[in-house]
Amino acid sequence: MRTDIAILGFGVVGAGTAQVLEMNKKQIEARTGTEIYVKHILDLRDFPDSPFADRVTHNADDVFGDKDVKIAVETIGGAKVAYEYTKRALSAGITVVTSNKELVSTHGVELLKLAKDNGCQYLFEAAVGGGIPIIRPLYRCLAANKVVRIAGIVNGTTNYILTQMKVCGISFEEALAQAQQNGFAEANPAADIDGIDAQRKLSILSTIALDGTYVNPGTINAQGISNITTDDIEFASKIGCEIKLIALFENKEGSKPVAYVAPTYVSRESLIASVEGVFNAIMVEGNALGESLYYGQGAGAIPTASAVCGDILEASSGEKMPDSRLWEDKGEAIAPYGEVKVSIVVRAPEIPVTAFSEYETEHLNGAVIVHGIAHDDIDRFVSGIPGAKWMHYLK
Amino acid sequence: MRTDIAILGFGVVGAGTAQVLEMNKKQIEARTGTEIYVKHILDLRDFPDSPFADRVTHNADDVFGDKDVKIAVETIGGAKVAYEYTKRALSAGITVVTSNKELVSTHGVELLKLAKDNGCQYLFEAAVGGGIPIIRPLYRCLAANKVVRIAGIVNGTTNYILTQMKVCGISFEEALAQAQQNGFAEANPAADIDGIDAQRKLSILSTIALDGTYVNPGTINAQGISNITTDDIEFASKIGCEIKLIALFENKEGSKPVAYVAPTYVSRESLIASVEGVFNAIMVEGNALGESLYYGQGAGAIPTASAVCGDILEASSGEKMPDSRLWEDKGEAIAPYGEVKVSIVVRAPEIPVTAFSEYETEHLNGAVIVHGIAHDDIDRFVSGIPGAKWMHYLK
Repeated sequence: MRTDIAILGFGVVGAGTAQVLEMNKKQIEARTGTEIYVKHILDLRDFPDSPFADRVTHNADDVFGDKDVKIAVETIGGAKVAYEYTKRALSAGITVVTSNKELVSTHGVELLKLAKDNGCQYLFEAAVGGGIPIIRPLYRCLAANKVVRIAGIVNGTTNYILTQMKVCGISFEEALAQAQQNGFAEANPAADIDGIDAQRKLSILSTIALDGTYVNPGTINAQGISNITTDDIEFASKIGCEIKLIALFENKEGSKPVAYVAPTYVSRESLIASVEGVFNAIMVEGNALGESLYYGQGAGAIPTASAVCGDILEASSGEKMPDSRLWEDKGEAIAPYGEVKVSIVVRAPEIPVTAFSEYETEHLNGAVIVHGIAHDDIDRFVSGIPGAKWMHYLK
Repeated sequence: MRTDIAILGFGVVGAGTAQVLEMNKKQIEARTGTEIYVKHILDLRDFPDSPFADRVTHNADDVFGDKDVKIAVETIGGAKVAYEYTKRALSAGITVVTSNKELVSTHGVELLKLAKDNGCQYLFEAAVGGGIPIIRPLYRCLAANKVVRIAGIVNGTTNYILTQMKVCGISFEEALAQAQQNGFAEANPAADIDGIDAQRKLSILSTIALDGTYVNPGTINAQGISNITTDDIEFASKIGCEIKLIALFENKEGSKPVAYVAPTYVSRESLIASVEGVFNAIMVEGNALGESLYYGQGAGAIPTASAVCGDILEASSGEKMPDSRLWEDKGEAIAPYGEVKVSIVVRAPEIPVTAFSEYETEHLNGAVIVHGIAHDDIDRFVSGIPGAKWMHYLK
């Protein structure tokens, strides 16, 4: 048996997908009972040196007009051409597998509906955490849990920068330049360093955790890492923490769900603090399972392709999408950022003993950890303390 | 819609399963479109105080003669009664979900075949790593990978003992007694401390990693932790390591697969070194994904029940088992232990410079790391060095 697929966009992940399918051809055939055959590659470019050169087409009709194509891999990125092609594929009953977090987080509601209506699937394991299995564990393994918390390092670029700042004692600008030189950051790094990429991934994770109640990325407050100084990094060490860009989701009994992205002092007692370089790690707390952690390479051609291929293999069985995977936009799904109560670390040359007396506090090597303070109240308290800085805290 | 299930054995995990199904009833119904209803509980005992008291029966015919029962949860343990009941259920076309590593690792080949022949499934996510999703990620998320390595802390009891020995500076015997007092070790702790439990779990993981080529637990060399001294623990700290009971599987190109269980110096550079107490963590390396790690509670009623329930929910969709999930016993699947080449740490008051000159070595704070030495050759080298001790090493 043969399952014909098409790859839309033959860039890093698209080409990696073809490579993994080729590299592990035998295993994949034995496991699925079918040969996964890359029949078309749709790209504006030609790839004369690729072993797949003969499959490349510039004409979308070659792909969408081919009744044999059962699965399309969308690795174009962005939410324009990718959006149009995804709609076209799903409308034709072709299952779409993607690593495109921007598209999933922006148009997931519509695209999942379209897949359902056309008897196919829209799968995106690779959109969060690169190669790390996280979407499928959430849907399947934790199916009997209420997800009460997700805390993740979901962006490899920023984690690489923060790790280099610490290990080499260099500034944010120097670490960014290094990341760009090494191919871990793009020429325009804004989406990564400003937390936009993490915001999109958190939108996807939060929506799944809320059983399909769509969390629009635009409603998620995202703060990046460009203001982090070497001084902050050194201070973190002093209080037994590491600074990480954390994507946080919480769904406590009796209060509205919470989701935001922020640089955070993470206590070294947490495994997440030890995650270095371009690696990602996502902590998921279920009300039955308790804490669990998923760790691995959050980016890169072959690891991300591993996740794409996992979806392709699942889709090749022809399984239908269950109704429960649909997303629904019910408006504001999370609490307004200002009202969210959090734990923060405040540091200053001198902090008056009474400064946070109305909160639960811990004192730690020249800093105060303040628990249960609303974002809206932080500035009022901190601005009164000369030279004070604050950041989120995660134990 | 309603899916009727039976629980065989209402002990810790069996009762936990009923509790999780009750606790998260709403979510589960929304996600599966079906009510999971515990119709029978088969146990020798009565449970007059349980909210499920009215479902308890001592008569197996009540369960297996009930055509409405679609899923049986086997949480009896052991390979006697559990074996008989599992065969009876599968033969009747009832899908069996279990946390029983002994049964799966001993009779998995036969039981999976029986499930296949009768159009049902035999699912055992909870048999390895308690609540941690590991079986399903291996089957589904890493489906496009060749698994080249698994290194796991898969036994919570021994990890608790090793952690207490380090943190409290107490002996193995004292830590074991503490573990028994706290309910983390059984009155007869042999299966845990001698590595038998880890051996069974490694048998399951290795068999899956080898696409169903059965690795008999009896062929896996297992060494326990009862010989570990406080001195060993202190020494580990000196060389930047933690001692962990590691279940190791390796499948390198060009050599026979390797599987064994042994106490191991784990470098603190590895995330696994930071896993403390009753927690489990399993590192899986795929040839596409690279390293990934799965971490969480490896035991306990509710976490393990979380995994059992994940399987129940999956089974409730009525999905059939793919042929590729069958196991096959082809005889010796792994390399003989003596021939396996490993990395070890050798320590002694004085190690002659030339002692391991034919191997690649690293020198480390009064110890030597020897790479690529066959198990069969270790004693010959080490016995010549006065006061020398050795243990496996994992970076």
